[in-house]
Amino acid sequence: MASIEQAITTLREISTEAGYISQAAAVLSWDQETYMPPAAIEGRASQQAILSALVHQRLTSDDLGTALQTLGASDATPTGNPSLAFMDSRLVRQLYRTWKQARKIPEQFIRNLAMATSQGQVAWANARENNDFAGFQPHLEKIVDLCRQKAEYLGYQGEAYDALLDEYEPGMNTTNVEGTFAALAGELAPLVTNCVRQSKNSPIDTDFLSSGFSIEGQQQFAASVMEAMGFSSERGRLDVSAHPFSTSLGRDDVRITTNWSDDLSRGLYGVIHETGHALYELGLGRELPSALASGTSLGIHESQSRLWENMVGRSREFWQHFFGRLQTIFPAKLQGKTADDLYRAVNRVQLSQVRIHADELTYSLHIMLRFRLELALMRGQLQVADLPAAWNAQAKKLLGAEPANNREGCLQDIHWSMGAIGYFPTYALGNLYGAMFMDQAATEMPKLWDNIAHGQFEPLRSWLQTNIHQHGLAKNAGELLQDICGKPLSHQSYIGYLRGKYQAAGKD
Amino acid sequence: MASIEQAITTLREISTEAGYISQAAAVLSWDQETYMPPAAIEGRASQQAILSALVHQRLTSDDLGTALQTLGASDATPTGNPSLAFMDSRLVRQLYRTWKQARKIPEQFIRNLAMATSQGQVAWANARENNDFAGFQPHLEKIVDLCRQKAEYLGYQGEAYDALLDEYEPGMNTTNVEGTFAALAGELAPLVTNCVRQSKNSPIDTDFLSSGFSIEGQQQFAASVMEAMGFSSERGRLDVSAHPFSTSLGRDDVRITTNWSDDLSRGLYGVIHETGHALYELGLGRELPSALASGTSLGIHESQSRLWENMVGRSREFWQHFFGRLQTIFPAKLQGKTADDLYRAVNRVQLSQVRIHADELTYSLHIMLRFRLELALMRGQLQVADLPAAWNAQAKKLLGAEPANNREGCLQDIHWSMGAIGYFPTYALGNLYGAMFMDQAATEMPKLWDNIAHGQFEPLRSWLQTNIHQHGLAKNAGELLQDICGKPLSHQSYIGYLRGKYQAAGKD
Repeated sequence: MASIEQAITTLREISTEAGYISQAAAVLSWDQETYMPPAAIEGRASQQAILSALVHQRLTSDDLGTALQTLGASDATPTGNPSLAFMDSRLVRQLYRTWKQARKIPEQFIRNLAMATSQGQVAWANARENNDFAGFQPHLEKIVDLCRQKAEYLGYQGEAYDALLDEYEPGMNTTNVEGTFAALAGELAPLVTNCVRQSKNSPIDTDFLSSGFSIEGQQQFAASVMEAMGFSSERGRLDVSAHPFSTSLGRDDVRITTNWSDDLSRGLYGVIHETGHALYELGLGRELPSALASGTSLGIHESQSRLWENMVGRSREFWQHFFGRLQTIFPAKLQGKTADDLYRAVNRVQLSQVRIHADELTYSLHIMLRFRLELALMRGQLQVADLPAAWNAQAKKLLGAEPANNREGCLQDIHWSMGAIGYFPTYALGNLYGAMFMDQAATEMPKLWDNIAHGQFEPLRSWLQTNIHQHGLAKNAGELLQDICGKPLSHQSYIGYLRGKYQAAGKD
Repeated sequence: MASIEQAITTLREISTEAGYISQAAAVLSWDQETYMPPAAIEGRASQQAILSALVHQRLTSDDLGTALQTLGASDATPTGNPSLAFMDSRLVRQLYRTWKQARKIPEQFIRNLAMATSQGQVAWANARENNDFAGFQPHLEKIVDLCRQKAEYLGYQGEAYDALLDEYEPGMNTTNVEGTFAALAGELAPLVTNCVRQSKNSPIDTDFLSSGFSIEGQQQFAASVMEAMGFSSERGRLDVSAHPFSTSLGRDDVRITTNWSDDLSRGLYGVIHETGHALYELGLGRELPSALASGTSLGIHESQSRLWENMVGRSREFWQHFFGRLQTIFPAKLQGKTADDLYRAVNRVQLSQVRIHADELTYSLHIMLRFRLELALMRGQLQVADLPAAWNAQAKKLLGAEPANNREGCLQDIHWSMGAIGYFPTYALGNLYGAMFMDQAATEMPKLWDNIAHGQFEPLRSWLQTNIHQHGLAKNAGELLQDICGKPLSHQSYIGYLRGKYQAAGKD
């Protein structure tokens, strides 16, 4: 018994130290994206390389392995000895997974992958800038090969893509995603067709939102929204970076960024999205050990950001409350406009080519496109050289047209250049998780939307914290769904939500 | 011979890794002082404690000790085997010193000190804010105890304070400082008396500088000055913090901060001072190994900041060049004023209570006050509880009056809360070093002041880089003085400079 306690202490100590070093690395990354002077990049890369190695050493250490063995962790019993208390069993599960996965990948391979993706990102940025796929092709070929190798190191039951997907969304596999996306696509198609036709018949005015909003005014408004959502500047901040992100630098230090333009909706919805991520990290239980103090999967994380951004932030009730405040800050810009004009403008449906500017309804189509292509790449059914043509064909099928060029097509996203194959599906899964959670929240809190219309966001935030945030990695995505909704993942809630919102709008 | 090469490689590898981890820690400190949200402090302290321990482990490692032994390093031959090339011999000297000192201090003690000073700084900030010495007292008691313990670990020949002083100003001891300060005080007294009497007889107008300067305009002007001094925003930045500082986060990443008010001279001279520090770090030789890539002592560092701030920035020549630019930015504020009015205003002598706002002439008195008190604390002749009274008594003696409250008295500086006892004397030593360097620079460059009057600061910056900056830790303070000025430290140059500037001004 003494040795069990000792092993738990070892687990906690090693993972806490690794956690603090990871947080330090996160501070460096945050600084790199926000304030770091340009010439500092080389030194910063060396600092980061050493911190990464220090974390890796700890999470693959023999000491950790021995302690996990003492605690009975194995593939058959990932939560270890059945006598362990709940939180300890989850700590064992998480660290056994991390340790096992990290031990499978040789250090030399990690270095090769880091080198290839580091060069790949530079090549991608140039290729996108110059609309030059050929300049990126050899890099992507190498990265796809390395990702296939990585899958072999990690191992899988079904197919190679499973191993990559599992890195980002533990418990999910290719068959699940294919089935879910196929069902979703079938239901989305008529909704999208209706809405696009409707948009053509009675165009929605969105021009008034797209320019002339001072950044200072937008910051003021965004601060009100963040505060209403429950983000406290005691425990976080909002800065500016080229691409919006959210990052946790400590249990009481979660930072978000946005990129202001004079388009009101881009900055605002960026802030709401990232605040949704931040609330998850800020809502983690104080009692969680360091190794469990994190969002449980990318899909669940994305459910929090997209739920706040779209289901709440693009709701009629949101604008019923916030329109007056916005009008006070921008009286001239919004003269003669109503909350309903705002609501319609931020929900206009349009088939477009660029994912990050896509509306809520068509967003998942962009993800399906990427999923199909990266799956085909991993299966060897598609060669990198043929990617532009394959992209354009899928874009025609899913988005109704081919992109004007590769820059707005297969070169638009950074993910593949970073080696992040298997990541995209989590964006769309986030929509499905989010809708399931919101269905349940509305059932448990009949006044939910009434509260939101009155600017009371705390009941929702608190419900999300109690049911999701506080558990961190102690519950995985499947367990959260089971405990909250009593059922596994499905697209039903999401489609129900979209029908309620867009079927009316799409009626002729 | 092969093993010598191998030992040098070991030295470089270990110290480079320690250097990068130290830089990561510096990023965390910078963030803590500039942007970190308040509630993050506890997590940040833990992150810092671990990074400190990682650095400590490397600099005390057996591998490093063995390599140093192989290279012949000992107390008798600190530069190691006489066959070593110059840079290698200095690397050996520096790392032998670091290793020997660090081995004396247990890792647990380092963690305790890091934790105590991290919390101490927060307590100090609150105490100063609320003029509440009692809130800081237990923290300072703990820190003083830890500093005494540290001195015992390090060992000393004369008294405990020697061990602390040597950390900041290697080669200096308490007796030296006491003697130098006594000689300086003797020469300063009549100069100060004269200038204060003269100020009373014919008051100098400084009111026009003390308010009404927009921060935006000040930032614009400060940017011109920084650029003229040779600071590039490619390799650094200027931010805001409660207490101005300069910090190196990498060879091409040196950050400074200031604290703007509507008083022109406060922000400006803060910026010039910190830019002086930054130029030192930015001027380090590219060929210096990581362990030598740093300013050689705090006193030499301070010579660079104070030389730029006072000898250059408060010179007639500086304002001959910059007055026009300032007038362009603040035409209304400076209507009817001349470069000479500015010169006189920024050089007004006044006995005051707050060190960071002290004029050049009386500044050293503030240092002597702190030196006496921290020496008494270390000697056990003064208890922390009695610090406010002792401070007030010394202030009366040296500065002619007691401070209005502890906020303007013993709570005014952050240093003790950081555990930096033994640090203050280096500020005054910096004045002496700086004057010796400027004497030599003016001798070698007869057009030095002519250049400055024409806004050409590059000859001075370049001279300082060639003679001081590029050498980093490869030359210690004594060696720099010997190589540049051909003599050891004395107060003669500084007093000569002050007489030239203030004796005329102080004449009735």
